[in-house]
Amino acid sequence: MSFELVVLGAASATPTSNSYTTSQLLKMREHYFLIDCGEGAQKQLRRSKTKFSRINNIFISHLHGDHFFGLVGLLSSFHLLGRTTPLTIYGPPKLKEIVLTQFRAAGTFTSYPISFVVTQHKVPQVILETEAYTVSSFPLKHRIATTGFKFEEKPLQRGLNKERADELGIPVCDYHWIKDGRDWTAEDGTVISNEEITFDPPKPLSYAFASDTMYVPETSSYVAGATLLYHESTFCEDKAERARQTMHSTAKEAAKVASEAGVEHLLIGHYSARYKDFDQFENEAQEVFKSTVRARELHAYKVSDKGIQVKNLRTPKHEE
Amino acid sequence: MSFELVVLGAASATPTSNSYTTSQLLKMREHYFLIDCGEGAQKQLRRSKTKFSRINNIFISHLHGDHFFGLVGLLSSFHLLGRTTPLTIYGPPKLKEIVLTQFRAAGTFTSYPISFVVTQHKVPQVILETEAYTVSSFPLKHRIATTGFKFEEKPLQRGLNKERADELGIPVCDYHWIKDGRDWTAEDGTVISNEEITFDPPKPLSYAFASDTMYVPETSSYVAGATLLYHESTFCEDKAERARQTMHSTAKEAAKVASEAGVEHLLIGHYSARYKDFDQFENEAQEVFKSTVRARELHAYKVSDKGIQVKNLRTPKHEE
Repeated sequence: MSFELVVLGAASATPTSNSYTTSQLLKMREHYFLIDCGEGAQKQLRRSKTKFSRINNIFISHLHGDHFFGLVGLLSSFHLLGRTTPLTIYGPPKLKEIVLTQFRAAGTFTSYPISFVVTQHKVPQVILETEAYTVSSFPLKHRIATTGFKFEEKPLQRGLNKERADELGIPVCDYHWIKDGRDWTAEDGTVISNEEITFDPPKPLSYAFASDTMYVPETSSYVAGATLLYHESTFCEDKAERARQTMHSTAKEAAKVASEAGVEHLLIGHYSARYKDFDQFENEAQEVFKSTVRARELHAYKVSDKGIQVKNLRTPKHEE
Repeated sequence: MSFELVVLGAASATPTSNSYTTSQLLKMREHYFLIDCGEGAQKQLRRSKTKFSRINNIFISHLHGDHFFGLVGLLSSFHLLGRTTPLTIYGPPKLKEIVLTQFRAAGTFTSYPISFVVTQHKVPQVILETEAYTVSSFPLKHRIATTGFKFEEKPLQRGLNKERADELGIPVCDYHWIKDGRDWTAEDGTVISNEEITFDPPKPLSYAFASDTMYVPETSSYVAGATLLYHESTFCEDKAERARQTMHSTAKEAAKVASEAGVEHLLIGHYSARYKDFDQFENEAQEVFKSTVRARELHAYKVSDKGIQVKNLRTPKHEE
């Protein structure tokens, strides 16, 4: 099994002529989750050939403009495209007022219902749960109320060893329980252990998103064991002081969290416009945590137990 | 003399992967005026190599998102770039609340003062006047309160015919009055007519912006005699009915206004995404008003009494 993360924007603070501010699209178990929505995110979604109608849940980490100024435009486009499917937005308390004030001013009511789920930044909290996955928010330490988000796949049923089951004459009606992990008892009372008649299901994967935040040890506990951790790295070591002042992290600090949390892979981004060479971030982080890749806009990161495959989604047509 | 208009966005409703919604930069008499500010306008301003600090006045025609969703992002970038120069924003009553709500949520106060001048859509009104120009708003007819804007150069002083003045022995201290248009009286009482010792100053130019609006005869009177009129043309004749329903105009209707108003040149834009071929708009408009050009994004339109020069501002760098 695998999930895919599409980086729509990886710049911090303000978009430049060729970069976009924070926004990511997570595709997990057939579900699309939009995480943060900087200005122009809808343009990047189009460029990544994403079907807008597949997005039913949007998560906003905090209310600094580079993480949500693209939201109302996207919601407006959903409306203009005639969307009817309900949408849920998870974010800080004031987000609802910000969105509704603008729709009211335009004399518009969306063609689809929007629900707002208010996040808090004091303790971790499950904010969305289905049979396939769990999404929770967790506290980050920034200049204003900010939360990270963790997306966790739920374990699938165990795989049935059909061949062995047939040898033992196990009736089909029992398969359901066996896949749930229970042993099987034959007519003569013999108990067949579940291990003997099933295979392990694929390991559930998880993605943790941490932006914006300064380095704090607590973060490691919230994202412990994630398959992929995205942790902001606004600066390199040469501007470590600046990172502290603005309550952001350096690439090395992001790597430190990844290492302490025992995640499998680290993705860094949210680069300060003061840098031109982003490989510098990757290099500094890799000194601390080997399996680090840097976020590149309009690139897809396919994550499985085998590792990460990176794919460039850009086409020349994009900048016509 | 001349003024320059840079088209930043010419699409209507929603940005696509390669187009931006309404925003224009007018450079008149050394002053920069930003007219409407669709999402991504700040990116287009950067691409057009515009110095943000030159923009001190922003005009918003109405509160449909495709005309202002890029405003708060631009204001935020001004702040992050350390701007201190005061900025004035002209627009509908609710604009101030929309902007301030978002800055409050971010816990930010801009590094520069912002003044809001509220526009009304009932009658034409002068909203800004200096020695060099006059800016007025005028009513448009759309689904919500909408105004157009007219930017008019003021006449310059008359040019002194230095050679003739020397022949007549006119003292330098009298030049000032003569340039203001007054006759000159010699010691012996001879009156020299102003025409004899001055040249006509260059004709003042003017730009009228009309978006969004359905066709109404009144518009012609508001923009009468403009050197350049921008009039929205969301649809072509094949969708005239759709234009009426949405209170927009067709290319032909835009041309009709230009013709009735006796303007020198017409610029059309605000194209519906239902069209792929924009030459169709130009062709249909030119049947009614010959001197029509169509708005192309990141193109500069230099307007003088000699006509319009169009320059493409795109560079390969944009295609990165």
